[in-house]
Amino acid sequence: MKEKRKIGRGVCVIGAGMSKFGMFPDKDSKELFVESFKETVESVDKGFDPNDIDALYLGNFSNDYFVHQGHWAPIIADAIGHTPKPATRTECACAASALAFKEGVFAIASGFYDIVLVGGVEEMSKCNTAEVTEGLAMAAFPSELVAGFTFPGIFGAIGSAYFAKYGCTKEDLFNITIKSHNNAKLNPKAQLPFTIRDMMNQKIAKAKKKGRTVPFWNDEKEFLRDPKANPVVAYPMSLYDCCPISDGASSMILCSEEIARRFTDNPLYVIGIGQGSGGGLQSPTNDNITSLEATRFAAAEAYSMAGLSPKDIQFSEVHDCFSMAEVIDIEDLGFFKHGEAYKAINEGQTKLDGSMPINTSGGLKCKGHPVGATGTGQLHEVWEQLRGEAGERQIPNKDLKIGAAHNLGGTGGTCTFTILERR
Amino acid sequence: MKEKRKIGRGVCVIGAGMSKFGMFPDKDSKELFVESFKETVESVDKGFDPNDIDALYLGNFSNDYFVHQGHWAPIIADAIGHTPKPATRTECACAASALAFKEGVFAIASGFYDIVLVGGVEEMSKCNTAEVTEGLAMAAFPSELVAGFTFPGIFGAIGSAYFAKYGCTKEDLFNITIKSHNNAKLNPKAQLPFTIRDMMNQKIAKAKKKGRTVPFWNDEKEFLRDPKANPVVAYPMSLYDCCPISDGASSMILCSEEIARRFTDNPLYVIGIGQGSGGGLQSPTNDNITSLEATRFAAAEAYSMAGLSPKDIQFSEVHDCFSMAEVIDIEDLGFFKHGEAYKAINEGQTKLDGSMPINTSGGLKCKGHPVGATGTGQLHEVWEQLRGEAGERQIPNKDLKIGAAHNLGGTGGTCTFTILERR
Repeated sequence: MKEKRKIGRGVCVIGAGMSKFGMFPDKDSKELFVESFKETVESVDKGFDPNDIDALYLGNFSNDYFVHQGHWAPIIADAIGHTPKPATRTECACAASALAFKEGVFAIASGFYDIVLVGGVEEMSKCNTAEVTEGLAMAAFPSELVAGFTFPGIFGAIGSAYFAKYGCTKEDLFNITIKSHNNAKLNPKAQLPFTIRDMMNQKIAKAKKKGRTVPFWNDEKEFLRDPKANPVVAYPMSLYDCCPISDGASSMILCSEEIARRFTDNPLYVIGIGQGSGGGLQSPTNDNITSLEATRFAAAEAYSMAGLSPKDIQFSEVHDCFSMAEVIDIEDLGFFKHGEAYKAINEGQTKLDGSMPINTSGGLKCKGHPVGATGTGQLHEVWEQLRGEAGERQIPNKDLKIGAAHNLGGTGGTCTFTILERR
Repeated sequence: MKEKRKIGRGVCVIGAGMSKFGMFPDKDSKELFVESFKETVESVDKGFDPNDIDALYLGNFSNDYFVHQGHWAPIIADAIGHTPKPATRTECACAASALAFKEGVFAIASGFYDIVLVGGVEEMSKCNTAEVTEGLAMAAFPSELVAGFTFPGIFGAIGSAYFAKYGCTKEDLFNITIKSHNNAKLNPKAQLPFTIRDMMNQKIAKAKKKGRTVPFWNDEKEFLRDPKANPVVAYPMSLYDCCPISDGASSMILCSEEIARRFTDNPLYVIGIGQGSGGGLQSPTNDNITSLEATRFAAAEAYSMAGLSPKDIQFSEVHDCFSMAEVIDIEDLGFFKHGEAYKAINEGQTKLDGSMPINTSGGLKCKGHPVGATGTGQLHEVWEQLRGEAGERQIPNKDLKIGAAHNLGGTGGTCTFTILERR
């Protein structure tokens, strides 16, 4: 890697939006993206004419598989009235739209385009759970598939290794689940906008109503400990450690730094971008499955460009497809030392009012994970937090200037890290 | 569109390679790409250390569909020893790797990376013809699929419309087929390296040997006219109007202009890039299916950046998935007026020794069309011609300085145009 990563022309975010995330079997990808696009255009403070968009970058993992239709970039371009201008799809599994964002930054930084729309979409709920699991498994390494792994199994294996190495237990992970649900309850776009306590009380009320034996749980941890309430999916990953199946879209408008203030007095500056790749958990060169080299590489690139270190990041969205992923992400990004993140989580440091808020949106776990929409969806949360527009889940007591998002594809086949700044 | 498209930092091609194109059911995408990669590295005149590559962009249409494996960028990165450095997949149907090339240009022009590997791969022959046809149909617009179109049908419809409008006939298209096969015979990488006359003579010899009635054809046109030898696929597209099903990979090394001559005294300069999108043949705004707006838009962008007009292009690869596509491509790119390309073809202008050689490689029709590998595969031909390395198919009697490649995805959902210069 070069000593210092840099781009020749600064790039800003001037608008951001997203559809609600959830299961919408009666909506297609076009409708979902149009919903996001409209909100994105309306979010531009001083108004925005969509005809000024020079190019579109669209992240999508595999609508090819989920709805048997490919070549989505022009379909979406057509749906938003963007043709004949260029539209390009990016794909690296669950990191698809973080790469749409990165390519949008490059396209502007290169000088070729001035204003670019970036975003992502995925339409998963037309498939059943088994079909989705099989489709997502296409994002793993071939060697992992041959070994019988699906994604819950992969993150289960990572969890077991981490537990053995550092003494973490399932009890520690409960604090991630509880925190993510608490945050999601405050997010109107979230797929699972309820706390674990809400779910617990709802189940108790339902049992009472039906005259069944009322389940007895004193608190959320007892609920999460109960294998009937929270069955094991792939040990140590149980149901409430796993993100749901989702449909959704997200999008942002980027432009060159020199014209950003035409559109808003409060643009966000793209100060760090980074990306790494990896050869899978079973790669002969991988002697440690509790850390992803691709995340570490992506972070190093982004920190290099920003001239920052982990301590300068005030909050971050990270890729928590499973609770275990959140633990290793925040270690690999340098927010906590290896083997210590779970202790910091237990201390409440990653809560909304903690010293290092993580996944204030509810994360993939509770906001939802429409794969191709997740990358720019995470950056949407950074946008709202940095601009003080996160409503009830606004990070308290902090003058927010610098936030980040970490997106992960496959088993660390692709990882990205993006740092935004409010000036 | 801006008055003048430009990039902030010049980009050069310093190496190019490709696997043989063909049907290789015993090879997988990794093996095909490694074959291309090795040739690409070896093509760098003054030597090249692959560790100097900062990032990889990989075009692939849908190995998800063809071999039920996604997330190919890191798989290929791993196969060539590129991890943990970034690897990104681009997709816009058959234009996938032209976009890998374009994103590689942007990544360098932005200043973020200095040396980028771009390329593409597709692994199609594991599927049978019906499966491939169904898979490729995913690249069409949903409205076209609902109407029962597959790609031969789409280009058949374009052909019928063109015939009706301009008086062209199937006889005129024969000259494209004959020319493409003549060129392919001179291309050691081509999938169908034989002339129509070779095929004709082979069939006659085979019939004689088996004691069957010897078919009687006086020349290639009689052969192509015979529905037994050249059956209709989707009128007016017959068998020899259609490209084959292919496996293959292609790749190029790009670097910033300022360091290019460290690697070669004969780099090619990327002087024009352009891309357009389209809403499909049945779009309510499309009143003319004999011309693709996306091609015209892509060409305008590329000519604007290069400061050139069509007459400055000395030769071009164009996207001839079907013979009919070649006709409308070379009109939309401005090489010939609308309705006149077929006359120029009849006059021999597009032959190897003509005034405007088209598809000197044999084109998709005869070199082969491993979808994701086609874009950089076309640019590979431009590389060889401009550097005088095209062997027996070297364009004669011309001081070649400027060549181009046009890549088309779907029904013009995506079109690109790329202009390279030797200085």
